[in-house]
Amino acid sequence: MKTIRVHAPASVANLVCGFDILGMALNEPYDEMTLTLTDKREINIRHTDSFKIPEQADKNVAGAALYALLDEVKENIGFDLVVHKNILPGSGLGSSAAGSAGAVVAANILLENRFSKEDLVRFAMAGEKLASGVKHADNIAPCVYGGITLIRSIFPLDIISLDFPPLYITAVHPQIEVKTSDARQILRKEVLLKNAIRQWGNIAGLIAGFLQHDYALIGRSLEDVIIEPVRSVLIPGFHEVKSRCKEAGSLGGGISGSGPSIFMLSQDKATAKAVEAEMKAVYEREGIDYRIYVTSVNPNGVQVAQ
Amino acid sequence: MKTIRVHAPASVANLVCGFDILGMALNEPYDEMTLTLTDKREINIRHTDSFKIPEQADKNVAGAALYALLDEVKENIGFDLVVHKNILPGSGLGSSAAGSAGAVVAANILLENRFSKEDLVRFAMAGEKLASGVKHADNIAPCVYGGITLIRSIFPLDIISLDFPPLYITAVHPQIEVKTSDARQILRKEVLLKNAIRQWGNIAGLIAGFLQHDYALIGRSLEDVIIEPVRSVLIPGFHEVKSRCKEAGSLGGGISGSGPSIFMLSQDKATAKAVEAEMKAVYEREGIDYRIYVTSVNPNGVQVAQ
Repeated sequence: MKTIRVHAPASVANLVCGFDILGMALNEPYDEMTLTLTDKREINIRHTDSFKIPEQADKNVAGAALYALLDEVKENIGFDLVVHKNILPGSGLGSSAAGSAGAVVAANILLENRFSKEDLVRFAMAGEKLASGVKHADNIAPCVYGGITLIRSIFPLDIISLDFPPLYITAVHPQIEVKTSDARQILRKEVLLKNAIRQWGNIAGLIAGFLQHDYALIGRSLEDVIIEPVRSVLIPGFHEVKSRCKEAGSLGGGISGSGPSIFMLSQDKATAKAVEAEMKAVYEREGIDYRIYVTSVNPNGVQVAQ
Repeated sequence: MKTIRVHAPASVANLVCGFDILGMALNEPYDEMTLTLTDKREINIRHTDSFKIPEQADKNVAGAALYALLDEVKENIGFDLVVHKNILPGSGLGSSAAGSAGAVVAANILLENRFSKEDLVRFAMAGEKLASGVKHADNIAPCVYGGITLIRSIFPLDIISLDFPPLYITAVHPQIEVKTSDARQILRKEVLLKNAIRQWGNIAGLIAGFLQHDYALIGRSLEDVIIEPVRSVLIPGFHEVKSRCKEAGSLGGGISGSGPSIFMLSQDKATAKAVEAEMKAVYEREGIDYRIYVTSVNPNGVQVAQ
């Protein structure tokens, strides 16, 4: 029986102005997953964490992703998976994507890399569909490819890895629940053309900022006039956190995925730590439980545990 | 009396998916402008072309731009301007922007470069306001900066010059009239969020394609699901021209500015010439008069005539 252990990273989807098209993998937190190849066409999943996640394979995001992969495999094989989640479900830090992507990347290593990264994203999207009802790839793609990814299109799938300068991320997870499906439902189906134009100017600026390593341009482009004004009402302290963190030197930031986590980007680690102090101050005062991660961009995505 | 002669280039605004935020300067056609510094606070304009453009300075786009510049000048000076337009008004190839930008770039040289490029864009936008009722910079910016420019934001003005690989442009101007103001009025004020998402995926892809010199990505990203479906109905033969040109090897293209010109991008000159043949074939058969330009990206914008 071949076995492999992987770390599947948290990720930040949207990156403020890039709703549904941009994502970034983080070095921390990450889920720990151990996958074993078996000779029975079945998938068994066991969780060693305490999140009460369904272990029945067709109700588990990693299981759904592995089933999608098995659909493309002729041999009589299956998988035993043991998962220890460290990325809190419902945090907005790509917990379900880590599960889906981690499982299929691990499976692909056990199957001697017979599938492309694009294939793996397709399989893992079956997990995202189970989790949120929508096939989206903005957390999956950075988990599989590493770094910062652009999903230009879902149908047909078109993923582009983007170059970027050193970036530090401070992410705070206030312990309140926001479901991705709820966060989607409050969005309007139509947007003003003038706001869409402002948004695509910012997206263009953000892409140029990443590729040209222009921190000031990245900072100016981290503005969302469409999604953030609607979703930020679900997150206590959002505007105060953001403005204090920018005063502390952060380039900018916003809602991570569909929230409630808030992430801020900084040019160096000292600023990322100063940003952490501001986040702490707000949620301590408000008496809201929180977790904070100070980390950097994970250039590799899911990787074999050392 | 100091005098200078400049060439003010045509430009392609929008670049398919980048409505109001992207523009590209062309090597041909260009307007010829001769500007003389005078010691009277007045602006005199004379046209040697046959386009019946108003020569009264406050009704002429170049005049409006020069007045905006003079507002920032304390000395008792003025300008005599002689214009020979080669860029047809109403072509969608940035005719008014060439006039506005050419005048203020020339004036700035006569004034020993006291103004920044950003200042010059601001002055020239007064000309665009006169021409179309809207202060936009997507033709002005590439005329002033050269090459391909991103206008991330108009208020505050934020212009970014983008790197790009060698590109050839074939632009056909079917001789029908589409006024910029009419072309704006037929646009809906609201757009579907799902279309906006598809559009900003394409914009992000196009920016990455330019900066990474990835021709295939540029081609895939040249898709407009918001403006083109509405405006293309004003342009006879639009869909046939586009599909034939793509079959002939063009990377893609669409409406230049607000039309009626259609531009196509190609990786090499031979393809750009093959594209020209397809355009000719369509408009010859339809019996519509046309002009075609086969040219490349002008990296300099307005420049002193040799």
